[in-house]
Amino acid sequence: MRYAVIVAGGAGTRLWPLSRAAHPKQLLSVVGGRSLLRLAFERLVGVVPPERIFVCAGSVHRDAILEHLPELPHDNFLGEPLARDTANAIGLGCALLARRDPDATVAFVTSDHVIEPIDEFHDALRTAFDVVERDPQVLATFGIPPSSPHTGLGYIERAEPYRPGEPLAGGEVFAVSAFIEKPGLEAAREYYASGRYLWNSGMFVWRADTLLRELETFLPASHAGLTRIAKAWDTPERDATLREVYTSLPKISIDYAVMEPAARGEGAARVVVVPMAVDWLDVGSWPALARTLENDSSQNAANTVTVLVDSEGNIVVSDDPEHLVATVGLRDTIIVHTRDVTMVCPKNSAERVKDLVARVHDAHGGRYS
Amino acid sequence: MRYAVIVAGGAGTRLWPLSRAAHPKQLLSVVGGRSLLRLAFERLVGVVPPERIFVCAGSVHRDAILEHLPELPHDNFLGEPLARDTANAIGLGCALLARRDPDATVAFVTSDHVIEPIDEFHDALRTAFDVVERDPQVLATFGIPPSSPHTGLGYIERAEPYRPGEPLAGGEVFAVSAFIEKPGLEAAREYYASGRYLWNSGMFVWRADTLLRELETFLPASHAGLTRIAKAWDTPERDATLREVYTSLPKISIDYAVMEPAARGEGAARVVVVPMAVDWLDVGSWPALARTLENDSSQNAANTVTVLVDSEGNIVVSDDPEHLVATVGLRDTIIVHTRDVTMVCPKNSAERVKDLVARVHDAHGGRYS
Repeated sequence: MRYAVIVAGGAGTRLWPLSRAAHPKQLLSVVGGRSLLRLAFERLVGVVPPERIFVCAGSVHRDAILEHLPELPHDNFLGEPLARDTANAIGLGCALLARRDPDATVAFVTSDHVIEPIDEFHDALRTAFDVVERDPQVLATFGIPPSSPHTGLGYIERAEPYRPGEPLAGGEVFAVSAFIEKPGLEAAREYYASGRYLWNSGMFVWRADTLLRELETFLPASHAGLTRIAKAWDTPERDATLREVYTSLPKISIDYAVMEPAARGEGAARVVVVPMAVDWLDVGSWPALARTLENDSSQNAANTVTVLVDSEGNIVVSDDPEHLVATVGLRDTIIVHTRDVTMVCPKNSAERVKDLVARVHDAHGGRYS
Repeated sequence: MRYAVIVAGGAGTRLWPLSRAAHPKQLLSVVGGRSLLRLAFERLVGVVPPERIFVCAGSVHRDAILEHLPELPHDNFLGEPLARDTANAIGLGCALLARRDPDATVAFVTSDHVIEPIDEFHDALRTAFDVVERDPQVLATFGIPPSSPHTGLGYIERAEPYRPGEPLAGGEVFAVSAFIEKPGLEAAREYYASGRYLWNSGMFVWRADTLLRELETFLPASHAGLTRIAKAWDTPERDATLREVYTSLPKISIDYAVMEPAARGEGAARVVVVPMAVDWLDVGSWPALARTLENDSSQNAANTVTVLVDSEGNIVVSDDPEHLVATVGLRDTIIVHTRDVTMVCPKNSAERVKDLVARVHDAHGGRYS
């Protein structure tokens, strides 16, 4: 059977003060009033039925997420007592699903992006499920055909077309030569020009048991810990075991722990990449989120009432659509208003909002962060 | 008897969005939580008793001002149905007080400034009252010894010392050669260097009947209208007469209507100037108001909770002292937060806030202005 797990771990501190520890990025309204988590959930429906969709996120967000996704069965929320990166979040999903259904084939998707058109997403997802169902040894990942020589993303170098036998219904599938971490600009330009490189989407499809076996090879400590947790899951010991075991797991990404060595042929599985020809918009920072908002004729992007006189290139966001933001003579500045915090910074300091949140936390504890 | 009238007409639109049409500048908390109006009132006490202090301001602000100054007798609020500039505000005060007390000697003071030290203010005020009580034909004004060649203020050129007879208890008094409108920089430097010029404070002391006689000479339409209003004041016709007559008066300043021609000897009165050696801080704009706030080591001035990372020379004001304003990499920017409006502009656009308010009013009526 086909399953899907939305991995919704990140806090999204670069979107502070709209994102908070208690109200992470995935729950913010971004596109047409829908949150990234809602968008990720709706994207899956049609390929995987709601009762087989799971969400893996911080335990503290359980109530907010269940309220946010009323279609999600409560047992399908997989709470992490604290974040141990994607190798363990994904490993936990596989360990639990493998016990429930020994033949479980699972898609792991992110909720950090706006992805369009959805049909392309569906086609790529179905292709990956098809490949994995024919060849249980396959670890399938998705690669986005690059639209620019982006230096903020990892790349996947594809090799020869993957042909396990008769042709697949969906699009092409390729073997993978290598996973490449964020490149410098010169390398990125080369990758972009060559046509053989794809952006690493951080999304995957595989059989739960196949991933667990690879995890046992490459990251035995996590494999052992996650197996213990899965055994305790449907017992009264779940929370105590999670707290004791999960928090002690090594913090490491699935790319680094499994995909890179597997692509080098160091495990038993084969890694393939399914191209997913979509617009893939990371809304992890204010300038990125602003791309989802309407622009006026002076390149000001806003989601609230504004009066912007002789002002250009600003980003204006409020959690209250009736709050007026007024500026005169202002250029390239980000203004974010919430009930208890106002954040202002030049656009070119957008990445430093992360540091700002840390300073706010140092000064005021959790009060404003 | 000695009286005082605080002329509190201006809206203070350059302090928007803290100042609003319904909550003008004079009522804003500025120094130690006290408003400019409160400061002006407390400055007078000691020279003029509270029951002989009056406030002349827009009728719409009556309730707010009476609540703000509980010591003020309700009859001492002189409401203007709309602003007709200082000649009529001051003329109204004189017309009403002359009917109440034919020997009324009245100080007219502004509420636009922070003035320190108060002792100097008191000394100058007493000197002016003394001069006017000895010589009923005198129109006394106050001049601030300039601390810079300011081009945003009018100047008073003093002439020979004024000596009506025996020496006065207080400081020096001078005859006036001329009132000068805001000068260019070169002229301002000359005035500043010469020592013979004083800043025009816009504050005065004179007998009510003397001013009315000058007004009859120089501005007979206002004199006639204000006389009609004064006659109707203690009758049921007050409001109707005010609405009908006051609104039709010519809009003109007391300097232009009376002081300038009187200083040229065109009337029956003599104009003198009493130097008032005070720090005289106009808090009519955000940069000016910021001088009343504490600065951090990076020249950021704030009245609320802030976390300002790598940020210099900013002005941060909130109507809620627990609202956090956080910035990173921001320079020389004004941020003003209120419950329903956030205003952001570069410091060098501070004077344009006036235009911004007009645009907000055009777009949203009175909702945010």
